[in-house]
Amino acid sequence: MIHSLSLSDVVADHARSRPQVVAVVDGGVRLTYPELDARVSRLAAALAEQGVSGGDRVLWLGQNSHAVLELLLACSRLGAVFCPANWRQAEDELRFVLSDLSPAVVVWEPSDATTALHARPGTSAGAWVQAGAEYERLVASGTPGEFPEVADTEPALALYTAAFAGRPSAALLSSAALLAHATSLLVVRQMEPGFTFLNNGPLFHVGTMMFCLATLQIGGTNVFMPAFDAEELCRLVDAERVTQAFLFGQMIDAVAKANAGGKYDLSSLRFVAHSAEWDGMITVDDSPWCRSKMGGYGQTEVGGMLTFLGLAQGGAGFAGRPSPLVQVRLLGPDGAEVAAGEAGEICARGKTLFSGYFARPDLNAEKSLYGWHHTGDLGRREPDGTITFIGPKLRMIKSGVENIYPAEVERALKSHPAVADAAVIGVPDPAWHQSVKAVVALKPDATVTEDDLIEHVKTVLASYKKPRRVAFVPEIPKRGFTPDYDALDAAHGGGNYPGA
Amino acid sequence: MIHSLSLSDVVADHARSRPQVVAVVDGGVRLTYPELDARVSRLAAALAEQGVSGGDRVLWLGQNSHAVLELLLACSRLGAVFCPANWRQAEDELRFVLSDLSPAVVVWEPSDATTALHARPGTSAGAWVQAGAEYERLVASGTPGEFPEVADTEPALALYTAAFAGRPSAALLSSAALLAHATSLLVVRQMEPGFTFLNNGPLFHVGTMMFCLATLQIGGTNVFMPAFDAEELCRLVDAERVTQAFLFGQMIDAVAKANAGGKYDLSSLRFVAHSAEWDGMITVDDSPWCRSKMGGYGQTEVGGMLTFLGLAQGGAGFAGRPSPLVQVRLLGPDGAEVAAGEAGEICARGKTLFSGYFARPDLNAEKSLYGWHHTGDLGRREPDGTITFIGPKLRMIKSGVENIYPAEVERALKSHPAVADAAVIGVPDPAWHQSVKAVVALKPDATVTEDDLIEHVKTVLASYKKPRRVAFVPEIPKRGFTPDYDALDAAHGGGNYPGA
Repeated sequence: MIHSLSLSDVVADHARSRPQVVAVVDGGVRLTYPELDARVSRLAAALAEQGVSGGDRVLWLGQNSHAVLELLLACSRLGAVFCPANWRQAEDELRFVLSDLSPAVVVWEPSDATTALHARPGTSAGAWVQAGAEYERLVASGTPGEFPEVADTEPALALYTAAFAGRPSAALLSSAALLAHATSLLVVRQMEPGFTFLNNGPLFHVGTMMFCLATLQIGGTNVFMPAFDAEELCRLVDAERVTQAFLFGQMIDAVAKANAGGKYDLSSLRFVAHSAEWDGMITVDDSPWCRSKMGGYGQTEVGGMLTFLGLAQGGAGFAGRPSPLVQVRLLGPDGAEVAAGEAGEICARGKTLFSGYFARPDLNAEKSLYGWHHTGDLGRREPDGTITFIGPKLRMIKSGVENIYPAEVERALKSHPAVADAAVIGVPDPAWHQSVKAVVALKPDATVTEDDLIEHVKTVLASYKKPRRVAFVPEIPKRGFTPDYDALDAAHGGGNYPGA
Repeated sequence: MIHSLSLSDVVADHARSRPQVVAVVDGGVRLTYPELDARVSRLAAALAEQGVSGGDRVLWLGQNSHAVLELLLACSRLGAVFCPANWRQAEDELRFVLSDLSPAVVVWEPSDATTALHARPGTSAGAWVQAGAEYERLVASGTPGEFPEVADTEPALALYTAAFAGRPSAALLSSAALLAHATSLLVVRQMEPGFTFLNNGPLFHVGTMMFCLATLQIGGTNVFMPAFDAEELCRLVDAERVTQAFLFGQMIDAVAKANAGGKYDLSSLRFVAHSAEWDGMITVDDSPWCRSKMGGYGQTEVGGMLTFLGLAQGGAGFAGRPSPLVQVRLLGPDGAEVAAGEAGEICARGKTLFSGYFARPDLNAEKSLYGWHHTGDLGRREPDGTITFIGPKLRMIKSGVENIYPAEVERALKSHPAVADAAVIGVPDPAWHQSVKAVVALKPDATVTEDDLIEHVKTVLASYKKPRRVAFVPEIPKRGFTPDYDALDAAHGGGNYPGA
């Protein structure tokens, strides 16, 4: 255990190294590191008394709260797994989570769905504890004694993510992976002690959780707000001298608008340049993370970010270069590395990687083929070594001996000025197994011929990837953000996919 | 292996991510990352053909060279252990190293001692390869094929350090520990891609090696010079736009003097403020590492630094706070944590820790007692949680039930304005087992009484730690930097030490 460092160990060390530092602010709650550490011990003891032990799951169904961090740390102290789930889901979706995870304890806040599930007998074998007074009674009831030695390679956090075959799966992240990822943020975001993070994004999302944990690791202060509210965010930034919040795009505009009169002092925020108005309110930060406008490529399964644009040094690939704690390879379907410039699946190894999905042995075997984590996304290595993210791999078209990824061809089509949207399918071909067919929606008033588009793709990609046929449609059918390939196959004659 | 990241993996990833970046500069040698990676593969294959396999040792006896980094990376690729030893040692000392380590291969540069050892038959069973042309032939002879999968927890580097019972021991550092430590430097030194490190300090010392590896990890450039030379250092900083070199104290004065006329442009150096002259030549850096003048506490066994003053945020303890990747506890001889303010042994766990000493099972058991690495140094926790380094533990005095560490009492004595130097021993005491006796050398022309000094210690430390007797001597006998306690015991009646 001499090389182990768990989340529980980090807060135990801060309790000694930073006795006066405020670890947590949440409404009227302010906890120093020793106070947080003591509550975590009491909570862990109380959970153990509820029967929670190594490998058991504890589920949070609620808004952001300091209780989320306490429960995660208490689970780490016991070797249990904490899962903050999206409580805004429908009752059926939450029922799936409960049955999938079989948590020993559920801590919940009332919503239509959680109230209905709580009321229904037999929903879950676990104990249900309501956030607030009941949770406080649980914490107070714990009598800390000896805790087990828990290796940092044990899963500590489960986050529901990627839907495969129509159901989400819980990515398991160990303390070692979470702290390695947090360290990569300390490097790229240049975080120092005193960093104060406002947890305004959802903590069931890795994008918020990863900064919460990096702030914990460097001994900073985590401020929690239940959900995003522009005015309240301004008030908290001012009152707590917040260094960074979970903000991008229209959220930044909303905050700038809420503070248009300059009512709040937001200068403690060290963040990304966005607009003249915003830049005048905050301190524009020069760390690689902020300079690169938080660019990169990531997913929950790698702990957050796999590559950082801030490490690109001006390279062409918009995903930048790998985190210092991982390796990235672009692999073909046979596990061999593809040549530079060719599309391949973004695959990874390293310290930040997850420990597989909870209770998905077949999927785990598939995702870790050849000893590399397969992200399910396509990328390309630029001549300068940086990585371009192309799009989700989803499925592959086989034409002769060649593998063709729809996302790569779609990207090429969309680079034509007349094209509004595009999707690519494979249609059965007696000679070549499949041939490429494009389905294209044009911009209003744009005109282009099938041959024009085929020629255009040939100027961007190897000739064998070009569509043989182009169908023009008013709109590409979608499932979420990606084309509805089943509908497209049905409407445009797709089929004969390899492995299908 | 999906979570593993070895030194070999890092250079393999850079070969892909940074194909045009110069990894190594050494005289006329300039290697990009792909070139370095290819040489490492050839060298690893050639070493394997020499019979080197997992766990075998490869020894370097020579000045600084890019070959040191190549050999380390090649050993990592094979699962072997690389040891750069201090070649300036006497023939007998080097003979001890050869017999202790039994290296499979020795790469050597001619010196009186190495030439003599090389000429003597039966010195070592391993193959001897001379640096330069013979080493180049070795590299050229390798035909890379498949290399074994090597877990990053395997030792990759051995550095001779701490002498116990009169002989040095080789601390084994795994890839995981070396890269975790490198990452801690990326955080505290705020290193970015493009960082160029001049390896002018000796690479058998962890202080140089740790920055060499952090520079490797972030994909920067390592420049090597055989040994420190102020004028040549200035030339290299100017020519290679060096970011940082291995410099402190009088070395900085020597460099500033060598460049007094401003012949070389040293503005690429981002470093510690030192003198008006120096500060005007370089760019004073604002990272926690440079701001705090590289303060902290460390030793080879923790990979370099265990605590950083740059993380102290103004706290009182000059060793600062622990690296983000370790835990520190101050333990008493029974393994229990001492109270804040009390002296205890600085003990550690975490990602940067060594894997024990090579072939020292008894010492390893002793150093890892109670599951914590015992540094052999004393520290104290200040009320703000920061750590003060007191001095080496060496041995303990037992007076009644109390444990008294000489270094703590010596520090108190030396804080008196009349005292030039002091050493503290235990003398047998029929009632208390031992009592404390101070041996003190006064400053020229200073006068002070025994009672004055005893009273002074009482104002700084708990009363039971005060000396009962003070002997005044012209000079404290030394062994290296520490008092020669055996000589002091013999001259001043010491004895009856616990456990002796």
